[in-house]
Amino acid sequence: MPSRPRVVIVGAGFGGLSAAKALAGANAEVLVIDRRNHHLFQPLLYQVATAGLAPTQIASPVRSILARQANAQVILGEVTGVDLAARAVRLEDRSVAYDLLVVATGATDSYFGHDDWAQVAPGLKTLADALEMRRRILLAFERAEVEQDPDEQKRLLTFVVVGGGPTGVELSGAIAELAHRALARDFRAIRNARANVVLVEAGPRVLPAFPPALSSYAKRALERLGVTVLLGQPVSGCDTQGATVGGQLIEAGTLLWAAGVQASGAARWLGSASDGAERVVVAPDLTVPGRPEVFVIGDTAHLDTPGGVLPGLAPVAKQQGAYVGAVIRSRLVNGPPPAPFRYRDAGALATIGRQAAVVVLGGLRLTGALAWVLWSVAHIYFLIGFRNRIMVSLDWAWSYVTFERGARLITGYPTAPVRDEGADRESPR
Amino acid sequence: MPSRPRVVIVGAGFGGLSAAKALAGANAEVLVIDRRNHHLFQPLLYQVATAGLAPTQIASPVRSILARQANAQVILGEVTGVDLAARAVRLEDRSVAYDLLVVATGATDSYFGHDDWAQVAPGLKTLADALEMRRRILLAFERAEVEQDPDEQKRLLTFVVVGGGPTGVELSGAIAELAHRALARDFRAIRNARANVVLVEAGPRVLPAFPPALSSYAKRALERLGVTVLLGQPVSGCDTQGATVGGQLIEAGTLLWAAGVQASGAARWLGSASDGAERVVVAPDLTVPGRPEVFVIGDTAHLDTPGGVLPGLAPVAKQQGAYVGAVIRSRLVNGPPPAPFRYRDAGALATIGRQAAVVVLGGLRLTGALAWVLWSVAHIYFLIGFRNRIMVSLDWAWSYVTFERGARLITGYPTAPVRDEGADRESPR
Repeated sequence: MPSRPRVVIVGAGFGGLSAAKALAGANAEVLVIDRRNHHLFQPLLYQVATAGLAPTQIASPVRSILARQANAQVILGEVTGVDLAARAVRLEDRSVAYDLLVVATGATDSYFGHDDWAQVAPGLKTLADALEMRRRILLAFERAEVEQDPDEQKRLLTFVVVGGGPTGVELSGAIAELAHRALARDFRAIRNARANVVLVEAGPRVLPAFPPALSSYAKRALERLGVTVLLGQPVSGCDTQGATVGGQLIEAGTLLWAAGVQASGAARWLGSASDGAERVVVAPDLTVPGRPEVFVIGDTAHLDTPGGVLPGLAPVAKQQGAYVGAVIRSRLVNGPPPAPFRYRDAGALATIGRQAAVVVLGGLRLTGALAWVLWSVAHIYFLIGFRNRIMVSLDWAWSYVTFERGARLITGYPTAPVRDEGADRESPR
Repeated sequence: MPSRPRVVIVGAGFGGLSAAKALAGANAEVLVIDRRNHHLFQPLLYQVATAGLAPTQIASPVRSILARQANAQVILGEVTGVDLAARAVRLEDRSVAYDLLVVATGATDSYFGHDDWAQVAPGLKTLADALEMRRRILLAFERAEVEQDPDEQKRLLTFVVVGGGPTGVELSGAIAELAHRALARDFRAIRNARANVVLVEAGPRVLPAFPPALSSYAKRALERLGVTVLLGQPVSGCDTQGATVGGQLIEAGTLLWAAGVQASGAARWLGSASDGAERVVVAPDLTVPGRPEVFVIGDTAHLDTPGGVLPGLAPVAKQQGAYVGAVIRSRLVNGPPPAPFRYRDAGALATIGRQAAVVVLGGLRLTGALAWVLWSVAHIYFLIGFRNRIMVSLDWAWSYVTFERGARLITGYPTAPVRDEGADRESPR
């Protein structure tokens, strides 16, 4: 290894940023490559999708985050492959050499072989995804407002969320709140109509990663918000009419996907062993077996531990990034290799709506208002940037007091045709 | 006219909203149609384009604004024409009958017959425009950062703003500040390079609507910020290499258009007389001559007054909307027609940058820090919605103290190829 090696980190999510920061002050050149210029606080992406927060409130430019780290550089670019023999990362129009490589490219939605569903049931991974969801949700209300046919109006006001993990639970809770409270004030024709939010989970309970008692609580809390929770049946079809569940069509104007993820193309780049979700199987020190200069972390990595395969969670990615930083620092000074990576489970949180959340913290299990406060504090605390924290806090305080949603803009696309009650009156009255 | 006539207002800008609000409580059905779901505070659009504010901070859903007005309905839809004989507005898939019609559709950019320039020199009328400008400006810095060729780097760091009216002055000042202060911290390679902002105005001075002394001040203030101001020469060419001014090519990676506007297609819809900017020539009561049931207001209207044709400014549109509301209210009770519309000039403001602005207020003429404070207070005051006011104030206070820009996200498009200093090193070191 050269005296001042170059560490290339692909991906500026929780894992990649954590690795870059762990190398602050180290005698290495750190190069962070991402195809977007911003780090995204994904746990709050559902808030952008449901018009609670604006994109700028949950995203920060990667450059700003690393501005004060003298040995770090940031490159905006899309990685298309890795040349392991030449030790270079291929971008669209050239390649970038590395001495050490950290792959932290995250995950994308998985439609379990039904990629054609993506068009009608978009997922939630990027800001663009969130804005597309927001557009569809808000447009559904606009169309229902001018729809004369009661059946079609009901269909337009039906939202099916596929997948009962934290994202699905948070999304369906937030849509129900948006529909029943914030929007009820602004519309005339559908003021008294009822939006119908359906959460579909193939497994026997929502929030399967939480203890069963908390899953039951979450289901009850969702039902209190008016969400219909369907358990034990997978979705077998998605099209413009609705979703098919258990052989029956749920007519719905808006389908949202929160059911599955698969790792981005890193396993292909590295030609290495991967699991069913295309995650790269890594050694206990998070390197690719046989490639000590290549690390894979976060949602892209498959690490077997005594407690099972580690899940794709932000804390896992962060801790793995920090660990890889420590391994590299140790190598720089020819120190002993650190002990294998061990995940310290910091607990898990998920929210359902106003004053409803579930928290597991060591032996502690919380539900209800206290859990919700904990969830809010934790999320604001971990949001990158002092400024974002202040702004998000204010926004939430405001929404809480007024039941208002600040980010209710439909942008980015021309409006689709809508109908109007005057449609049948061609002549003036 | 029926006992409870329907007033259709096309466009929810300053003029349309003002007309709708002036009809609150009147015995009429008010139907506001807009192709977007939000009212936009256009005077601050340049702040979104230069990453100072987020879209949600200068836009509010039209529904929310009119939620408490019982006789108002809001329809999301695109008007494609007007059937004057049948008294109906045509939308994409049907028509909406009216008894009285208010056309307030605003203006779009004018390229003076060079519509092909729009691709390389985008204008600034909608949120989508502003986000596209933001994307181009931020991407230019990203590309310059990894560019090896000094000439190309200089070209990438050159921004040409066409048009020396308020928008052009505000844009070029904001880009210069963004480049010289906020971004200087975050980049490595271009930290010591100088961004080059060129403002091109065909006339003899910037801010031609202001007194000459204020124009001179604005020019000096821009130059203090590092902006090159070129006066007296029109742009004769725009392409991907740059802009041609006075027969000479200014090599620039980013061109922005703030030079001219034309009214949207209302004159065509109404088949009525229009001026060179396609504005509908209206009678002193803002009706279309011969069509007492059709009003045209704001940027779409051409009204001759003793002081000349009224300019396309927000206060003009607002006052005209309120006036039309009063005319309609008077007709509803068979009252006497109000006196012809008279514009009360409330003054004019434009800002150049931190602590630099110009203000004309009756006989008062201000420049410098005091003018800037006045400008800030006025703009925050007129921003619709209490919430937006608080948030924008906080954002400005924060930016002022920290020189930071909060909304620096590149979204919406895949990144274009960028180059990297490692490009010439295919092998590992």
